[in-house]
Amino acid sequence: MSIDHKKPPVIENPIVRMNESGTAETVRDNIAVEDPLEIRLGNDPFVVTMRTPGHDDELAAGFLFTEGIIQWRTDIKEISRCISSPTPENTIRIDFKSPSVRAGLKSNRLGAIAASCGVCGKTSIESVQGRFPPLENNSKIDRKLLMGLPGRLRESQSIFDKTGGLHSAGIFDLEGNLVVLREDVGRHNALDKVIGYALLNDLLPLDKHILVVSGRVAFEIMQKALAAQLSIVAAVSAPSSLAVSFALSSGQTLIGFLRRPNLNIYSHPQRIR
Amino acid sequence: MSIDHKKPPVIENPIVRMNESGTAETVRDNIAVEDPLEIRLGNDPFVVTMRTPGHDDELAAGFLFTEGIIQWRTDIKEISRCISSPTPENTIRIDFKSPSVRAGLKSNRLGAIAASCGVCGKTSIESVQGRFPPLENNSKIDRKLLMGLPGRLRESQSIFDKTGGLHSAGIFDLEGNLVVLREDVGRHNALDKVIGYALLNDLLPLDKHILVVSGRVAFEIMQKALAAQLSIVAAVSAPSSLAVSFALSSGQTLIGFLRRPNLNIYSHPQRIR
Repeated sequence: MSIDHKKPPVIENPIVRMNESGTAETVRDNIAVEDPLEIRLGNDPFVVTMRTPGHDDELAAGFLFTEGIIQWRTDIKEISRCISSPTPENTIRIDFKSPSVRAGLKSNRLGAIAASCGVCGKTSIESVQGRFPPLENNSKIDRKLLMGLPGRLRESQSIFDKTGGLHSAGIFDLEGNLVVLREDVGRHNALDKVIGYALLNDLLPLDKHILVVSGRVAFEIMQKALAAQLSIVAAVSAPSSLAVSFALSSGQTLIGFLRRPNLNIYSHPQRIR
Repeated sequence: MSIDHKKPPVIENPIVRMNESGTAETVRDNIAVEDPLEIRLGNDPFVVTMRTPGHDDELAAGFLFTEGIIQWRTDIKEISRCISSPTPENTIRIDFKSPSVRAGLKSNRLGAIAASCGVCGKTSIESVQGRFPPLENNSKIDRKLLMGLPGRLRESQSIFDKTGGLHSAGIFDLEGNLVVLREDVGRHNALDKVIGYALLNDLLPLDKHILVVSGRVAFEIMQKALAAQLSIVAAVSAPSSLAVSFALSSGQTLIGFLRRPNLNIYSHPQRIR
């Protein structure tokens, strides 16, 4: 099911670097690529997301999964580049095995999403809510091990190293082994990619794993994590109020400001040993 | 045209703070509020955005302006809380003076947006593009003055101080005076709020001003800035490739990594003295 990635995630650009005393030099700088990806369902345009190229198959599959449109890897017949598109490198097509899968679409995400957008296409406040049952597992993670994970995530961020400008999401098992890490200009794209990876490699549900994200945690991150049954979510930065209230009711353990020597636990602390 | 803001931008929550040695204490912590805002055009639901409460009138007006749906303050008849909604604090209504304004809607943003989403509702790659003419003004800003602006922005971020988790956008004049600063869980909401402020206070166009943002700059930030004719955009962190290519063709000066003692100029350096 893997597909070619024709666009690089980083480009080199000439820039002017100036310092306080006014000295300016033209240098070549690495810049993280942001480009629109159009996801088509069969022949039909479905959604456009601004993403960093690479792992587009995972992004598309993960997005459809976390949005509740597909439930199983086997719902997917094929993921392919849309060679009939004028921009095949930015157009991906998913065909389903059964037409009934598209019935999930009646929950209705129309249109497009931006790099950090997870709740597009909803037309009212009522529709911005969870669609997955709360978690009750008793997975636990060791406190010291947890504190080492942001460093492990950072070490593995190859695009960030070059550009200084990317979000990352990593899935670790409860022993602290990295399963998959993805980077993207969009926080929720990085998460869709790691969940898409898990879906395409039959690793779901992720109830015995932990999600670590590089930045802040908003509501939609918790919602997408819940779709994959990720019961422990840890962030290097702050959560939003809605992420916290979502985690309290979904049964997820939410950790923020995971920066040695401290961490903040916002919900369900029983999972931290 | 101002309206009540019934929800606070920060809430206090009990959290567990744990350190590396395992000592845990329950403390009260400040958390940035993320809540859905439904924008209605007259009686019709139009869009839902995840935002930090406060200045919702500016957010709604700025959003409609940067999306090209309205062009002038005088297009707006009234901005009001939707008291018929079950959640009036999260529902805002805009009435237009003339029904013809809604013709702008045929460019068609359907559905909802998340906290950091600026290109929702587009159904194809072709529609994710600029709608405003390029800038050719010769506004200039002093290098040293520019380097002081992130510190000025940071000093004025009252919510960030409490929560450590908010984006901010500030408009300064070319002498470095702060005109308006807004904070939000969504990067593009903060920008819509400052542009909405300018619209509602008859300060547009902002061609003799500079926009400073706290984080990264993606494509949609440049696009929204262009709508307000902001010809100089400076960010504390990295731009994306699409932000850079957009700035090159829009005539905007894009500055990134604005951190003493250096700054990077990605496009049109002639505006830096």
